Amino acid sequence: MTGLLVGLDIGATKILGVVARPDGEVLAEVRTGSPAGGDGVVAAAADVVARLRTESGLVLDGAVGVGIPGLVDTANGTVTHAVNLGVDDGFPFSARLGEATGMRVVLDNDANAAALGVATLIGQDDLVYLSIGTGLAAATVLDGVLRRGARNAAGEIGHIPVDPAGIACECGQVGCLETVASGSALAALWPSADRPPAQALFDAAAGGDPSAEAVRDRFAAHVADAVRLVALTVDPEVVVLGGGVAHVGERLRVAVAHALAEQATGSPFLASLDLAGRVRLAPQDVPVAALGAALLGSRDG
Amino acid sequence: MTGLLVGLDIGATKILGVVARPDGEVLAEVRTGSPAGGDGVVAAAADVVARLRTESGLVLDGAVGVGIPGLVDTANGTVTHAVNLGVDDGFPFSARLGEATGMRVVLDNDANAAALGVATLIGQDDLVYLSIGTGLAAATVLDGVLRRGARNAAGEIGHIPVDPAGIACECGQVGCLETVASGSALAALWPSADRPPAQALFDAAAGGDPSAEAVRDRFAAHVADAVRLVALTVDPEVVVLGGGVAHVGERLRVAVAHALAEQATGSPFLASLDLAGRVRLAPQDVPVAALGAALLGSRDG
Repeated sequence: MTGLLVGLDIGATKILGVVARPDGEVLAEVRTGSPAGGDGVVAAAADVVARLRTESGLVLDGAVGVGIPGLVDTANGTVTHAVNLGVDDGFPFSARLGEATGMRVVLDNDANAAALGVATLIGQDDLVYLSIGTGLAAATVLDGVLRRGARNAAGEIGHIPVDPAGIACECGQVGCLETVASGSALAALWPSADRPPAQALFDAAAGGDPSAEAVRDRFAAHVADAVRLVALTVDPEVVVLGGGVAHVGERLRVAVAHALAEQATGSPFLASLDLAGRVRLAPQDVPVAALGAALLGSRDG
Repeated sequence: MTGLLVGLDIGATKILGVVARPDGEVLAEVRTGSPAGGDGVVAAAADVVARLRTESGLVLDGAVGVGIPGLVDTANGTVTHAVNLGVDDGFPFSARLGEATGMRVVLDNDANAAALGVATLIGQDDLVYLSIGTGLAAATVLDGVLRRGARNAAGEIGHIPVDPAGIACECGQVGCLETVASGSALAALWPSADRPPAQALFDAAAGGDPSAEAVRDRFAAHVADAVRLVALTVDPEVVVLGGGVAHVGERLRVAVAHALAEQATGSPFLASLDLAGRVRLAPQDVPVAALGAALLGSRDG
């Protein structure tokens, strides 16, 4: 075994693959579009591994870690609720990709993989990673250990109701955190055809548009609610903002930290926890989910 | 060392001490009233230890574990926010009790101690314990490990806002879970002078009083909210209902399980998690917090 790790981040639109060292250094990177359906995804993923071998010229003979959206059964290497990929519930993903690559496959949820990648990159083994994408989910690393939960439902904070007078959520409940603190929620408040809504909103707010400032601040306050929720439940050292919305960069962290400081003004209890000072932005220049997936392979087995 | 454990549950009204075996068997039990102030509490606690020695005739020479309300600094053996006991912030509790008893003192939050006691008694090492007393707090044991949090704030779920239109909380925020899912919240809805309000409410509801039934069901729904919140955050195997309100017994578990089943009717996602089937009642005939405190002493050091 060469000790080199392979990681794949399988998303609804693209598959990103990396070769990495155990210390987190990325040696090679390949990406391709995501086809639909279990067979197609496995074939595309295997192709990414083959290209990583060819383009890097490295011997890759260990494990390939895979991060994928949905509820992952890590023991069986299957996934359910991977609706955006068109992968059937129970599709034997790990077994099929193992046959196609000749490598041991370690499958996990993509947010879990990203949390592990971030933990390694920022040198912090106690954190909650908030994936603020189309939806809202959290991934939790406590004292270096990924917390998946008894039913793989740890971190499903997007479906915690926080407002009885809120709007209906696709999950069947009302007023879920995801309905106000996600990329979809932001896009509904600030639609944009030509570029990502979060980018459009933060640019307009930075340009002094008062309605954009108001929408940005309201959105940031809801993300702050998510930070507070995880802080008062598992109390991680830091909470890391990631996912598509976090591509607006440091401006998101500043807005959320500001909202947290505002929330704490009326509450000595909250103020004592210094949540504003414990919010981080996920590293922007590294494929954290693919790297984290690679690290999964080094941990398990 | 005899291997016997001593545990103290220090509450606002009483101090309960036990001698226990590492397997959870309680060999002796002593209780006394709680005085106010750090010096008084230490003296009373030391007296309980002395009485345990005298009344049991056992050699107690190891550690004494102590569960106490408030934010506990386990490293320094100090407590803050122990307002009901009148113990000053930073009072060197462990050091002082150690001098008075000649034993090593292991101090922790009382809900954490109770969670550990329950975990041992029911043979389940992955759980969240909900302490539904005057306030609402959770204690978390994940894969056998107590999760205290980076700032000892893990489990402070009582202060997560769940209703922007809710009432003001003593913590300075609005609509906190504690304002609707605690013994105080219940007492405000169903005052009772002659016995515990929870008892009065559940008795009246069992007797067919329609307004009592309505209040009971609304209260149970809010406790169900707390169960759902921890399930979608850390996803423990089971959630255990404890604290003063849980003294109404199995009726509380049934009402909360019913509310969880109701919440899941509209949400296949929630239904798949079977929260109603994962709620337990804390053992009623054992002093779980004192026992858990005793077990703390066997773990740490």
